[in-house]
Parts: sequence; structure tokens; C-alpha cells
Amino acid sequence: MDKGQLIALITEAVVKQLGHNSEANKIPVAISNRHVHLSQGDMDRLFGTNYRFKVLKNLSQPGQFAYEEKVTLVGPKGVLENVRILGPARTKTQVEISISDAIKLGVKAPIRDSGELIKSASLTLVGPLGSTTLPEGTIIAARHIHMHPNDAAQFGVKDKDRINVKAPGARGLVFNEMLVRVSDNYKLEMHIDIDEANAAYLKNNDSVEIV
Amino acid sequence: MDKGQLIALITEAVVKQLGHNSEANKIPVAISNRHVHLSQGDMDRLFGTNYRFKVLKNLSQPGQFAYEEKVTLVGPKGVLENVRILGPARTKTQVEISISDAIKLGVKAPIRDSGELIKSASLTLVGPLGSTTLPEGTIIAARHIHMHPNDAAQFGVKDKDRINVKAPGARGLVFNEMLVRVSDNYKLEMHIDIDEANAAYLKNNDSVEIV
Repeated sequence: MDKGQLIALITEAVVKQLGHNSEANKIPVAISNRHVHLSQGDMDRLFGTNYRFKVLKNLSQPGQFAYEEKVTLVGPKGVLENVRILGPARTKTQVEISISDAIKLGVKAPIRDSGELIKSASLTLVGPLGSTTLPEGTIIAARHIHMHPNDAAQFGVKDKDRINVKAPGARGLVFNEMLVRVSDNYKLEMHIDIDEANAAYLKNNDSVEIV
Repeated sequence: MDKGQLIALITEAVVKQLGHNSEANKIPVAISNRHVHLSQGDMDRLFGTNYRFKVLKNLSQPGQFAYEEKVTLVGPKGVLENVRILGPARTKTQVEISISDAIKLGVKAPIRDSGELIKSASLTLVGPLGSTTLPEGTIIAARHIHMHPNDAAQFGVKDKDRINVKAPGARGLVFNEMLVRVSDNYKLEMHIDIDEANAAYLKNNDSVEIV
């Protein structure tokens, strides 16, 4: 090998490594506003048994979508109107709000991972045809990262791990205790709520980094 | 020295050290809601030249207080009513809001340290006797820690340093780029806004730790 070939090889390796490093730890951000996942029973109660929901748009996570329809949340101290319904229907209704929302509604919603609803907060949902008062089901969704198994392998993490993630900038911060969720159905994305996004000055599609 | 004395001495030293460690890096949290510091000229414009403001309460920082009086903030997209005025009067009016507030008002307020108002956002303030439209003066206050020089010496930091501060718990996070402000007039306290408090699930008088 002559000197020119050697330089070319080294250059290629360095460029590859640099490219790898700068991209390898990046995770796109998606900011969740308050929303509701309804059970089929609650869909029937709020909109009527024969109502056909209209899909507004697909969400970034495969198989998930937003409906055009909205509901009103009513708590002991306040009301939030025009709250988005996400599909498909779930076995149990889940309401996801921020701490700011919980204060406005006057409910003591716990910070929980999605699906962990036992003894979470009570709330009344009102639709165009009826209402339902949930004894539980209202949570402040714990921040988390969706990953495909390929992403998890690349990052060296597994489902249910808790990791630290760094947001850059003048309001830069490190989110500790970030839950990792791995599934074939997931696309790489960090989900945080509006309070968390504002605290870190993050917008949709900004990038954060595992530390 | 017998064994009993030795045990007592070691125990005392260990307890003292543990106590020292657990307290030494703790900083109490104070959460800032939106507020306004008015110049004397703007006080006159909004409340009249002969108006006597009433002190509601002293703030934790020595010499700072909240007035009973409030103003209305009006932006191109929205209004925030009943916004607290803090005293004493400043040479230039400064409005401090959160990112959520900036979105509601429809203003592009920059994240700034207190007093750095050049080319910050425009906003209209309305009082009971008049209004004023500020060409600049509206900011999202950068989070910061007030320290007495004794605290700064203990922590080994100086005025204008940027440090990292850790909040504990299920929403635990590390605030990077936290500005240190040192003055004889200051009492040890970290000031964050409501977005930041909610993101970390912090309440007034909770403690954070320098890392």
C-alpha cells in the first residue's frame, strides 16, 4: 500500500466514525398535548353506539392516529375543552394531561407510565351525546422513548430501562429516569409533554442525545 | 481510649460528615409566576401620578416585595389578566413571562437574564388609569440561583458562573446552564418558572443539589 492509499483509507475511516458519532445518539422529539384514548364503551356513551369516528391524521407511531372528534374534560375546579381523541380504541379509557392541566382541572393525577391506571385520578368526560365519569384513568404520562428493537440494539438498551437524555441549548437540561419502550411497532421518538418541552425549549423534531 | 469511646467518636464523626454532605449542596426552590417590574414613569401612566401602591408582602429576596396592584398584559394573540407587580420601581419596565404565556400572548419573547432587555419583545400593559405599549422589555427569564457571597464561597462558585443543578424524583432532571448571581443582598434560592417546575415536578421550598 502506498502513502496515498493509506491516507484515503484513514480518511474514510475517520469520516465514517465522525458521521457515526454525530448521528448515532440522536433521538427526535415529539411533544404530546393533552389527549384521550377511549374504550369502545366510552366511545358509545359519548358519541352514540352507531357513530363512525373520522380519522384526522396518522401519528408518527405506526398504527396510531388522531380522530377529528374531541371531548371536554371536567374536573372539580375547571374545564378543558376540545381535547383530542387518539385511536384505535383501547380496552380501558386513558386520559393524559400535564401538571398545568391537572392544576386547572383540580385533580391529583399521578405521574404514570401508559396503561398503569390503578388508583389514578377520576375525571368526567363529556361528548356530544353523553358523559362518563371515570373512577380512574387520568394520568400525567411519564416521559418515554419509543424504540424499534434495531434502535435499542444500536443504543445498547432494552425495554423498561431508565436512561438519561440531554437536550441542548440555553435551556439545556438532562432528563433523568427516561423510560425506554421497545417494540417492533415503534419508531424512534422521545415523547414529552408541553411543560417538559417548554422547560428545555424543545420543539417537535428537535433532537436530543443519550448520555 | 476504650472501645466504647472509640465507637462514640467514630459515630460522631460519621454522623457529622453525613449531615454535612446531605445539607451542603442543597438549594431551596422558588417558582416564579409571570410578573412585571414597572418603571416610575409606567407606574404613573397606568395608575396615575399621585397613586400610592400598597405592599402585599415581602419576597424572599431582601428588599423585594409584591404590590397588591395588578396589570393586564395584551399581545397580538391573547390577554393575561391579573399579573402581579413587584417592587421597588426599576429604571426600565421588565415583563417576565413563561414560554406558555408567550404562546398565549402571541409574542416572541427571548430567554434572557434579568435586565438584558435590548431587542426583547414588545407588549402592551393596561392599568386602571391608562396603558403603555413597550417597544421592548418582555423576556422569558433565564433560570438562576441567587447566592450570598458566603454561599458562593461554600459552593466554590462566583457571580455569572453557569452550573448544573439536579432535581430529584420520578421526573428528576439536571438543569444545565444555570446562572449564578452573587450579591450581599441575595439569599440562597433557585428561581425557575412554572414550566420548569412542572417538568421537574418541583414545588416551592423543595431542594435541589449542585452536581
